[in-house]
Amino acid sequence: MSIQVKGYAAFSADKPLGAFDFERRDCGDFDIEIDTLYCGVCHSDLHQARNDWGWSTYPMVPGHEIVGRVVKVGKNVTKFKVGDLAGIGCMVDSCGKCEPCKHDLEQYCDNGNVQTYNDSFRYSTGEKTYGGYSTRYVVVENFACKVPENLDTKAVAPLLCAGITTYSPLKHWKVGKNSKVAVVGLGGLGHMAIKFAVAMGAEVSLFTRSTNKFEDAKKLGVHHIVLSTDDAQMQAVANKFDVIIDTVPYKHDLEPYVPTLTVDGALVLVGVVGEEVGANSANLILKRRTIAGSCIGGIKETQEMLDFCGEHNIVPDVEMIDMQYINEAYERMLKSDVKYRFVIDMQSLKK
Amino acid sequence: MSIQVKGYAAFSADKPLGAFDFERRDCGDFDIEIDTLYCGVCHSDLHQARNDWGWSTYPMVPGHEIVGRVVKVGKNVTKFKVGDLAGIGCMVDSCGKCEPCKHDLEQYCDNGNVQTYNDSFRYSTGEKTYGGYSTRYVVVENFACKVPENLDTKAVAPLLCAGITTYSPLKHWKVGKNSKVAVVGLGGLGHMAIKFAVAMGAEVSLFTRSTNKFEDAKKLGVHHIVLSTDDAQMQAVANKFDVIIDTVPYKHDLEPYVPTLTVDGALVLVGVVGEEVGANSANLILKRRTIAGSCIGGIKETQEMLDFCGEHNIVPDVEMIDMQYINEAYERMLKSDVKYRFVIDMQSLKK
Repeated sequence: MSIQVKGYAAFSADKPLGAFDFERRDCGDFDIEIDTLYCGVCHSDLHQARNDWGWSTYPMVPGHEIVGRVVKVGKNVTKFKVGDLAGIGCMVDSCGKCEPCKHDLEQYCDNGNVQTYNDSFRYSTGEKTYGGYSTRYVVVENFACKVPENLDTKAVAPLLCAGITTYSPLKHWKVGKNSKVAVVGLGGLGHMAIKFAVAMGAEVSLFTRSTNKFEDAKKLGVHHIVLSTDDAQMQAVANKFDVIIDTVPYKHDLEPYVPTLTVDGALVLVGVVGEEVGANSANLILKRRTIAGSCIGGIKETQEMLDFCGEHNIVPDVEMIDMQYINEAYERMLKSDVKYRFVIDMQSLKK
Repeated sequence: MSIQVKGYAAFSADKPLGAFDFERRDCGDFDIEIDTLYCGVCHSDLHQARNDWGWSTYPMVPGHEIVGRVVKVGKNVTKFKVGDLAGIGCMVDSCGKCEPCKHDLEQYCDNGNVQTYNDSFRYSTGEKTYGGYSTRYVVVENFACKVPENLDTKAVAPLLCAGITTYSPLKHWKVGKNSKVAVVGLGGLGHMAIKFAVAMGAEVSLFTRSTNKFEDAKKLGVHHIVLSTDDAQMQAVANKFDVIIDTVPYKHDLEPYVPTLTVDGALVLVGVVGEEVGANSANLILKRRTIAGSCIGGIKETQEMLDFCGEHNIVPDVEMIDMQYINEAYERMLKSDVKYRFVIDMQSLKK
């Protein structure tokens, strides 16, 4: 038993994406089936489509920022009913037995969670996972979240990755009304980090290397902008920040930022994966500072984040595209030419 | 008004230490004067005597692991009476007004604490600070600690630096009965980290690069030894440790150790100061791991540490030397030829 799905796939590392029809498993007793409305376009989609990390298998249907309507529910499903709005993020299963899984930290599953695409349902039905650049998704209800109906649905999709990736470290490092937060990088992740930190009541600064980001940053609610190429401005914020969310997706020097942390401050990497990062040990030791990393968030926390967004009416700034525009979108993303996230309107696949 | 003190000083970066008579301020209303019994020899004494960090001023009397008997107390002193055993560590004053100072974190004073030597009492009387390689020390009682009488007094001295440097991060990162702790490096700091972690009830491992440390480590109570040059042994401890205390005092690669941390685990640098340290960002992000630094401890925590030692009968393993042996001791320290800390018997200066 299986369902027919229309999608868009990468067929090899060096070719453009194109139409791809495939099958998903039928909706099981614990599953929900969603009719995909929107799917965000994450930088990692591009990396994986092009096999930048070396573990890609083809054909690959990318997409892990998925919002859709529930069209079918399994008989044991309790959280959703047909017609609900549901969201699926980067994971669609995990072992469920390890300590991280038992503590709602499926993103850190000791045995490895199941990625929404370019993976396989290895803890259950075994088939390959295909992502959200497609008309339908079938997932166990435990790995889907309820999407607040009051939000602009088309803009919700990037919350499932860019949103939770920045919300989770802000919560883990206890950002609140008295916090001073800085964000490095103003892209899909950075602009969400700003929106969340502002909504949490923190005093929020943006580190940027160019003055042409100033206007955009102010629109997002940033309280202070620090030009990181200006020594005097950097000196003026020494020992200031409780938390720095560093969203830069490529290798970069952390040293300018570490001395701007307060005692016990934490610089949290969320954007750069697989690169050597470093700092001067004296700047860590002499103020008990921390360099850490953080990866998306657990399902429970993702739901909390969506509810927080519903309450504070927070959604990303998005540019809507048709599925057929994806290859151009990738090229523009490489040039950071998007404010701040592309979202695919899945109606374009259903025509 | 001043008191005459006999000491041992470095007169320049490239000459051996020798006898040096000098004056200290008379015991003020809030001060205690101690007759120095013992002074530990810290690696940083050697670095500063030789101006390795570039901020040395001469003549310099090193020594910041000081134990002595109180021989005089100012009229406003409440914590000590004549005859008490007192300890002085790395700091002898701080601004007292900044947030860290208000929170018993004088070691992280925003305005800089006053170091026990090679500094000046810039928040009070202004004179240069001379360290514990001397017969007397005068310090405000707030920066002295009470030393439990039940401990072997001559071995207590290194607790004031090597002890608190390792105790503080173990407490800050909440090591207790269910913790798995690893220590990198088996020297003055490393052997104290092991003793404390064992006493706190943790399961303690030592990372070492040579099998000839095995016997010594077992004597210290280590539960497991991991040969860090053996890939299979390193693989076997992947994702295991809640806290790693890294005591290595020179530049080294952190990458072998980071993957042995559990989710939310912390690698804490306490030994290497002023070097670039780094790790692969994926190993931080994918398990929310942390690289941090930690510097000695506040005065309140130093007292807590001494009380903990009194309760658990913990002292460092020391080799006693005369003051006149200090230059040979430095040479041996450079070769790690000491188990695990030299302590100067100050009677040798009083003859």
